Amino acid sequence: MIYAETAASHVYKRREMISRRDNYLWKIESGVVRSLTWTEDGQVICSGLWAHGDVIGSELTNLNPYEMECLTDVQLTEISRSHWGNYVNEIIRHSQTNEFLLKISHCRAKDDALRQLLGWLTNRFGEDDRQGRLIGLQLTHQEIAELIGSTRVTVTRIINDLEKGGFLSRKGRKLLFLADSSEQWHYEI
Amino acid sequence: MIYAETAASHVYKRREMISRRDNYLWKIESGVVRSLTWTEDGQVICSGLWAHGDVIGSELTNLNPYEMECLTDVQLTEISRSHWGNYVNEIIRHSQTNEFLLKISHCRAKDDALRQLLGWLTNRFGEDDRQGRLIGLQLTHQEIAELIGSTRVTVTRIINDLEKGGFLSRKGRKLLFLADSSEQWHYEI
Repeated sequence: MIYAETAASHVYKRREMISRRDNYLWKIESGVVRSLTWTEDGQVICSGLWAHGDVIGSELTNLNPYEMECLTDVQLTEISRSHWGNYVNEIIRHSQTNEFLLKISHCRAKDDALRQLLGWLTNRFGEDDRQGRLIGLQLTHQEIAELIGSTRVTVTRIINDLEKGGFLSRKGRKLLFLADSSEQWHYEI
Repeated sequence: MIYAETAASHVYKRREMISRRDNYLWKIESGVVRSLTWTEDGQVICSGLWAHGDVIGSELTNLNPYEMECLTDVQLTEISRSHWGNYVNEIIRHSQTNEFLLKISHCRAKDDALRQLLGWLTNRFGEDDRQGRLIGLQLTHQEIAELIGSTRVTVTRIINDLEKGGFLSRKGRKLLFLADSSEQWHYEI
């Protein structure tokens, strides 16, 4: 498609915020972005984690405040409104991610919510590793808490329990699903 | 548009479930539908309330189980995959509703979540009434609880508090925002 070849490209650094732009969406070519909002008392809520192939943009949201924060270096290409019809599948996938996070945020048992989130992260960001599946993404416990609607303390407690149970290990600052447990995880999710 | 004039129409009765259909979306011509899923222990989670002009369909979701339940009599027209590009705005609005419900499900204070939900319901389903704004929709307290991730008991308690505070009244089985408080409500939401 000609417009794809000529679309303007934008590069952002880790921790930069992507600027709002009317009448445009962004397609992520590389890197990871999280979208966030917060309540009046400052509680941060993450409404999605977005990576290669996803579309993002302030035109997709009604939330205010709304920020798109780069979790890694990020490369984007722009999609003007007249071309959005070519990105229906990507826009539907955006909605599905919002809806999946909605579902797990309702889980009363935060252990369940975190287990489902980790399953989704493994599917979306997983890389094969000798010992299992590595989530190719560094997320702090606070950032995980902001995805499931919990607290950092609770997330740390649950992750420690999963490590003790032999489901999960750490590799540097990334999380690794151990091979023996990965089938069970996928089955359960 | 020719396809709109010739699109097949479907009618469902209140409490019927809309059938899944691959490669089609449904546009709601009249009536109200809620989409739902549930956890393994049977907790129902409502992922959206949909009405005139919205698009719905199992093709929009990754959740399983997933049901679309008619809260009133409903009339739908079908949209085949080749026409989805004409419904980008409606698909984006679907995503925005999921995301709004995600945001309020994270609210730790369920009073806040319910207040925001009622504000949204008033904007989406509100009808002018001599005393204020009437939410033109019958929802049980249980159904409201399934939208904000709370319990029926908590919803009943909060609604009673709002009635005592003069914010809310009942009109038959519908909720009515009282005129004196409606500006404040809209401001806060």
